[in-house]
Amino acid sequence: MAAQGVTPRSEDYSRWYTDVVKMADLADNAPVRGCMIIKPYGYELWESIKTALDVRFKATGHRNAYFPLFIPMSFITKEAEHVEGFKPELAVVTHGGGKELEEPLVVRPTSETVIGHAYADWIQSYRDLPLLLNQWCNVVRWEMRPRLFLRTTEFLWQEGHTAHATREEAVEETLKILDIYGEVSEQECAIPVIKGRKSPQEKFAGADDSYTIETMMGNTWALQGATSHFLGQNFAKAFDIKFLDENNEQQLAWTTSWGMTTRTVGAVVMAHGDDKGLRLPPRIAPIQVVLTPIWKTDEDQETVFAFAKQVEAQLRDVGVRTHMDEREGLSPGFKFNDWEMRGVPVRLEIGPRDVAGESVMAARRDVPGKEGKQVIPVAELATRIPVLLDEIQDGMLKAATRFRDEHLFEASSYDELKEQVDGGWSLIWHCGTPECEDHIKEETKASSRCFPLDKNVEWSPAGQTCAVCGQPAFGRAYFARAY
Amino acid sequence: MAAQGVTPRSEDYSRWYTDVVKMADLADNAPVRGCMIIKPYGYELWESIKTALDVRFKATGHRNAYFPLFIPMSFITKEAEHVEGFKPELAVVTHGGGKELEEPLVVRPTSETVIGHAYADWIQSYRDLPLLLNQWCNVVRWEMRPRLFLRTTEFLWQEGHTAHATREEAVEETLKILDIYGEVSEQECAIPVIKGRKSPQEKFAGADDSYTIETMMGNTWALQGATSHFLGQNFAKAFDIKFLDENNEQQLAWTTSWGMTTRTVGAVVMAHGDDKGLRLPPRIAPIQVVLTPIWKTDEDQETVFAFAKQVEAQLRDVGVRTHMDEREGLSPGFKFNDWEMRGVPVRLEIGPRDVAGESVMAARRDVPGKEGKQVIPVAELATRIPVLLDEIQDGMLKAATRFRDEHLFEASSYDELKEQVDGGWSLIWHCGTPECEDHIKEETKASSRCFPLDKNVEWSPAGQTCAVCGQPAFGRAYFARAY
Repeated sequence: MAAQGVTPRSEDYSRWYTDVVKMADLADNAPVRGCMIIKPYGYELWESIKTALDVRFKATGHRNAYFPLFIPMSFITKEAEHVEGFKPELAVVTHGGGKELEEPLVVRPTSETVIGHAYADWIQSYRDLPLLLNQWCNVVRWEMRPRLFLRTTEFLWQEGHTAHATREEAVEETLKILDIYGEVSEQECAIPVIKGRKSPQEKFAGADDSYTIETMMGNTWALQGATSHFLGQNFAKAFDIKFLDENNEQQLAWTTSWGMTTRTVGAVVMAHGDDKGLRLPPRIAPIQVVLTPIWKTDEDQETVFAFAKQVEAQLRDVGVRTHMDEREGLSPGFKFNDWEMRGVPVRLEIGPRDVAGESVMAARRDVPGKEGKQVIPVAELATRIPVLLDEIQDGMLKAATRFRDEHLFEASSYDELKEQVDGGWSLIWHCGTPECEDHIKEETKASSRCFPLDKNVEWSPAGQTCAVCGQPAFGRAYFARAY
Repeated sequence: MAAQGVTPRSEDYSRWYTDVVKMADLADNAPVRGCMIIKPYGYELWESIKTALDVRFKATGHRNAYFPLFIPMSFITKEAEHVEGFKPELAVVTHGGGKELEEPLVVRPTSETVIGHAYADWIQSYRDLPLLLNQWCNVVRWEMRPRLFLRTTEFLWQEGHTAHATREEAVEETLKILDIYGEVSEQECAIPVIKGRKSPQEKFAGADDSYTIETMMGNTWALQGATSHFLGQNFAKAFDIKFLDENNEQQLAWTTSWGMTTRTVGAVVMAHGDDKGLRLPPRIAPIQVVLTPIWKTDEDQETVFAFAKQVEAQLRDVGVRTHMDEREGLSPGFKFNDWEMRGVPVRLEIGPRDVAGESVMAARRDVPGKEGKQVIPVAELATRIPVLLDEIQDGMLKAATRFRDEHLFEASSYDELKEQVDGGWSLIWHCGTPECEDHIKEETKASSRCFPLDKNVEWSPAGQTCAVCGQPAFGRAYFARAY
C-alpha cells in the first residue's frame, strides 16, 4: 500500500516521484518557474554526495577554486559548437547597478570559456601542467520542462577543468574521473553504472569525446549520472591556452571538463524509492538510524527516554548518524510511516519492554515486514549496527544491480530493439549518426545512451553494420527511454 | 625589506594589499569588472573559514538548505527599506531561454525576500518554530569601486535566516550568532573583534537592529567582519509569515538574518600581512608546515628526500597539514621567500647536516630572523610541532590584540576625534543621527563603526550629549576610517 498522499509507483511513476520528493521534504518549487528550493533534508543528502566526491578529487591531486558567475557574451561565442549547444538555454543579465550594460553578461551555464580564458594567462610552461582544478557552484540553463532535481533551470554541481601537456594525459584524466563518478554512484549511492562513450550527437558541445555513467531508474528508464569530457584542443584553440614545452617550442594544451550535479539526488529517489517513500543507502543517508521511543504513561516516558539516550550515545560514539524522534502527540505508527517516507535505513523501536530486556527492536527500511526486524541486545549495538548498515548498503547495490541486469537486453534487429525498450535497455550494433539516432528516437522514444566501454574492445568493429540503417557500425550502443 | 614585486606596506598600503593578494596566489581579477577569480590557495583559506563556521552553526541547531539565485523583481520591492537599500546594486536578468522575460529577475543580493516567501508557506504553527536555516552561496551586488575580496560584485558567503515565535528568542539568536562570528574571527583567524550595534544609518536595509563584529586592519582602518540582523517583524509583515500560537491565535513571526563573506580572506591578509607577504594563522592555513629539502649533490638529494618524507609522514599522522617543496632548479633562498609570501606558519629546513643530526631546523613565519628559529630533534617533532602551531596561533591573536588596543582611543570632544581617527579608532558620545554621522564623515573620512556592546550598559545614557552636535546621546560609538 502506498503511503498517504503518495501516488503508487505502478500507477504513475512521474507523479510518484514528485510526491515522494515533496513529502520526504527534499525540495520545493521556487517562485521562479524552473528553479527549486533544496530543503534541509535534500541538501544534507547532497552534502553527503559532495563530500564523497570532494575527498576523491583531492586524493587525486585536484584543488578547488572559484570562477565568476558572469561570463561576457563574447566568450560564449568563441567556440563554435559550444555556443550552438548552449545559446538557447542562456539567462542573460542586461542591467547592472541601475544601468544598461555595454555587453550583456551570461549567467554561467558551464565554465569552460571563462576558465579557458584564465588558463591562457596562468599556463606558460610545461612546468605549469597538469593544472587540475574543480569548482563547486551553481549554474543556470533555461529549462522548458522542469522537474525537481532532474531538470531545473538552476542547479548545483561541481565542474572540474584540467589542462595537460599531452593528449594521452588528458584522455587518462577523463577516464580517471569517470571511474571516480562510477565509484561514488556505486559505493555511496548504491546505483550501478554502465560506463560508456556518448554518440557524436549526444556529446558535450565543444568536446571531442564525452564519457558518461548511465544509471537505470526504478521504471527502467535511463538517467545520465555524470559526464566527463575530453575536450581535445578545441578550447585551447578558442582561448589560446599555449605552453612552452621542454624543447622550448610552443604547444597547444589539451583540456578536459567533467561534472556531477544535484540531479544525483533525484537518481537516488528513483533508483531506490518505493510506494512508502525514499529508501536511502546508509553511506549517504543524513540520518542512518532513527530512534523512536514508545510510551504510554509519564513514568514509562521518562524511563524509555533515558534508555534511548544511552543507546543514542553509544551509536554516536561509533560514528553512526542518529536522530531521536521525541515528538509528542503522534502515534508510533505515524512516526514509523514518517521515517519510512524519509528513507532512514534503520529504525530502532524502544518501549518499556525493551528497556526491561536491555535490548531494542531494529527494523530495516530495505526489507519490509517481519523479515527485516531483529532484536539486538544493547550490549551488542555498537558492533552490530555498523555491520547492519554495511549489509543494507551492499544489499541495496545488489538489488539495484539485479534489477538493472534483468532489464538489459541485446538486440540483433531493429524490431527486437523496439520491443526491448518498452521495458529496458537495448544494446545494438549502431552507426552512431545523428540521422539514424533521431529516426530511432522518433519511432521508439528511446535515445542513444552510450557505447559501453566494457562491451566494445574495438570502437569500429570490422564488418559489423548498423542494425537499423545498414551503414558500417561505430560500435554497440544502448538505447533506452531516458530522463 | 619588502619581497620582490611587493610595494612596501608603509609606502602604499592599498597597493601592498593588492600585490600580496596576487603574489600569494589568492585571487585574480575576472574578465567581468568587479568580479574575481578565487585561486586554489585563496579558496582553501575560505574552505577553512567555512568549515569553522559550518561546524558551529550545526552545533547550535542550524541546518543548511539552498534557495534560488533568481528572485522576482516584485519580491524585492515588498519591504520598503529593503528595496531602497539594494535597488542601486542589483544585477537584472531580462532574457532567458532566448526570450524576453515577462518579469525581470534579480540575481540575489541577499535572500530575505525569497526565503521569507518560502517561510510563509512552511510556517503554520508554533510547532514549526524556531526555523533555523543557513545557506552557502554566491550573491551579487554591483560594485563601483571593486577590490579583491574586500568589495567584489560577486562574492561568496553564508546567509542564515531564522524565524521565531517571540521577540526575545529572535534577539537571543541574533546575539548568539554574533558570538559565533566573534569566536571564528578570534580563535580561527586570530583577529580580535569589537562587537557592537550599527547606527540606524549603517544597519541592514530592512532590519530593526544590526550587530557587527568590527576588526582592525594593519593600517588601523576598520573592517566590518560580519553582521547579524534582528529583523523584527518587518519581513514577516511583508511576506506574511504567520503562525498559530499555543492559544490558537495567529501571530506574526520574528526573524533574523546574518552573514559572513569571502571578505574575511581579505581581512586575514590585512590584519596579519607584512612586507614579506601573508602571515596565516595555523588554524586556517591550508599548509601549516612546509618542508624544504636542501641539497647539492644527487646523493644528498636522495638521502634528504627520504628523510624529509619520513618527517612529513610523522607530521601528517598527528594531523598537521604539510607540503613538501620538491621543485628543482630553485635556490633555497627563493623557496624560503616564496613560502613566506604564502604565509605558511612553519618552515622546516632539511639538509644533509639535519639528516646526520636526526633533527630539522624550524623557522616561524611570525617571528623573523634567528629568534624565530629552533632545532627540533626528529623524535620530538610529532609532539613539538602541534604545540608550536598553537603558540603561533596564540601569539598572532595577542599581537593583533595589542596592536588594536594601542590604536583605540576615547574622545571627549570632536577635535580629539579628528586627531584620533588619523591613526586609530575614536570612541565618542554620539547622537546616532544620519545627519551628524554624515557631517563627521565628510570632515574626517571616518564613519560610524558601531556602538560597542561591552562599553555601553545603557543605550541612551541619561544626561550624555553628542560630542559633535550636542543632541542627546544614543550611546558611545567608534568612529574610524573603514573599508
